[in-house]
Amino acid sequence: METPNAEIVSEKARIRRIVEEARAAGWTVGLVPTMGYFHEGHLDLMRLARAECDLVVVTLFVNPTQFGEGEDLAAYPRDLERDSRMASSVGVDYIFHPGAREMYQEGFATHVEVEGLSRIMCGASREGHFRGVTTVVAKLFNIVPAQRAYFGQKDAQQLVIIRKMAADLDFAIEIVAVATRREDDGLAMSSRNTYLAPDERAQAVALNQALERAQELVDGGERGADRVAAAMEEVINAYPLVNIEYIAICDNILLRPLEELSGGVLVALAARVGKARLIDNRVLEIE
Amino acid sequence: METPNAEIVSEKARIRRIVEEARAAGWTVGLVPTMGYFHEGHLDLMRLARAECDLVVVTLFVNPTQFGEGEDLAAYPRDLERDSRMASSVGVDYIFHPGAREMYQEGFATHVEVEGLSRIMCGASREGHFRGVTTVVAKLFNIVPAQRAYFGQKDAQQLVIIRKMAADLDFAIEIVAVATRREDDGLAMSSRNTYLAPDERAQAVALNQALERAQELVDGGERGADRVAAAMEEVINAYPLVNIEYIAICDNILLRPLEELSGGVLVALAARVGKARLIDNRVLEIE
Repeated sequence: METPNAEIVSEKARIRRIVEEARAAGWTVGLVPTMGYFHEGHLDLMRLARAECDLVVVTLFVNPTQFGEGEDLAAYPRDLERDSRMASSVGVDYIFHPGAREMYQEGFATHVEVEGLSRIMCGASREGHFRGVTTVVAKLFNIVPAQRAYFGQKDAQQLVIIRKMAADLDFAIEIVAVATRREDDGLAMSSRNTYLAPDERAQAVALNQALERAQELVDGGERGADRVAAAMEEVINAYPLVNIEYIAICDNILLRPLEELSGGVLVALAARVGKARLIDNRVLEIE
Repeated sequence: METPNAEIVSEKARIRRIVEEARAAGWTVGLVPTMGYFHEGHLDLMRLARAECDLVVVTLFVNPTQFGEGEDLAAYPRDLERDSRMASSVGVDYIFHPGAREMYQEGFATHVEVEGLSRIMCGASREGHFRGVTTVVAKLFNIVPAQRAYFGQKDAQQLVIIRKMAADLDFAIEIVAVATRREDDGLAMSSRNTYLAPDERAQAVALNQALERAQELVDGGERGADRVAAAMEEVINAYPLVNIEYIAICDNILLRPLEELSGGVLVALAARVGKARLIDNRVLEIE
């Protein structure tokens, strides 16, 4: 089936006008913020937006302010032509792809920060990362005034923080979480998987296996967070190329660490595998 | 002339729905954020909004997060009935008057801050003040999605910071500055003037007189910031009840201190007079 090509727009004023006109006509607009280099996980976000909305805008911007010193900003994979083809194949209407100067004028000085939630877990090793994320997402919410924004569950902490930011600042937008897409062996899809050498790629399955072990234990009645975390660590330690950065077991609203598992529990982890820093998580609903 | 009463709305969801419906009908909506206890300066903001917009929403919220410890949050004057009458008299449609819990849910954790500009001048003595202002104004922009927002030139630094915040975060709202209203003797109108004892009230004229002296010097060709500031200080020192907190001579976009006056120059000052902390300013356009 042929779909028309997604149109690439680079000016803020133009994409806002397009969205405002759609809104004025009574359309529902869906926003899918991305950094590009699409995989099936991104396409799932776009497919859901396409199914739920009249107009779908994907933003593609490798946001420099969410990369720390020594992180992979320059190396982050980019392929606009391929991305455009993939987005078009699932019926995206517009790709907003601004330059860095279009997004950050000279003398840019404003920051949006969710305190507390931004400096734990991934935030502990990535200083300023979530501040960069919340600032650019606040900008995107204003540039593309959609009714719904789609984010991947894979970035669980980011999702919690964006929900909190949107609620605290009264953004009139619904935040929709989309399930993580996985490779056949269970590895969560990520643009950063391209950094993995073949032996690293093989061992990267450790993250999902640890999460499956956590699920098994909880299904078997285990409620002690320390014991779940220890079992996950044991799984991962069988893979010498995978180095745990953190394992977090916390509530899924405010990321408060839990001793006893109950309610909506987020089990999340980060690990270094070669040059890549990988994350994964599972949300467990426990009565 | 009879005007209908302004309707008081306390729920965010309700005022947003009202504004969204007006926008959907093609109306221009004007927002006038205030802390209440209206004087003619506030009414000027409302009159301009009334003249320029189809729907006028005044927000009345004494925002606790912009008051520091030991500041006058509890003492800040309040009179909703009188405010409502005054707003109605100039044709305001709605007064959004939320409770503190409606604005700040339990666990509120998000802040909007304009770096650099927020910690100088008034920000130097009022820690966290402008962060509180930019955070609540960002919320109000989202709750009341107007096309125009009206702010008084009297709060010159606040105006510069809000303009910067709106530009940096891409809020789709035009910031309109409204000239300072003055008493017959030149004192800038302020809700805080009610704190002044009669002898203090008489001497409070010093602030405007210092600004007039600055204007005279500049009109006479003076371009040295130090000499202008020294002359202003001399004027104020003739009033023993008026204690200067700062005199700033800076550009009116990024508040950078100037040595030589040129372009759009902001001459601003703050002083303690009894229990009151008063501010005033003048913008000089110099070729």
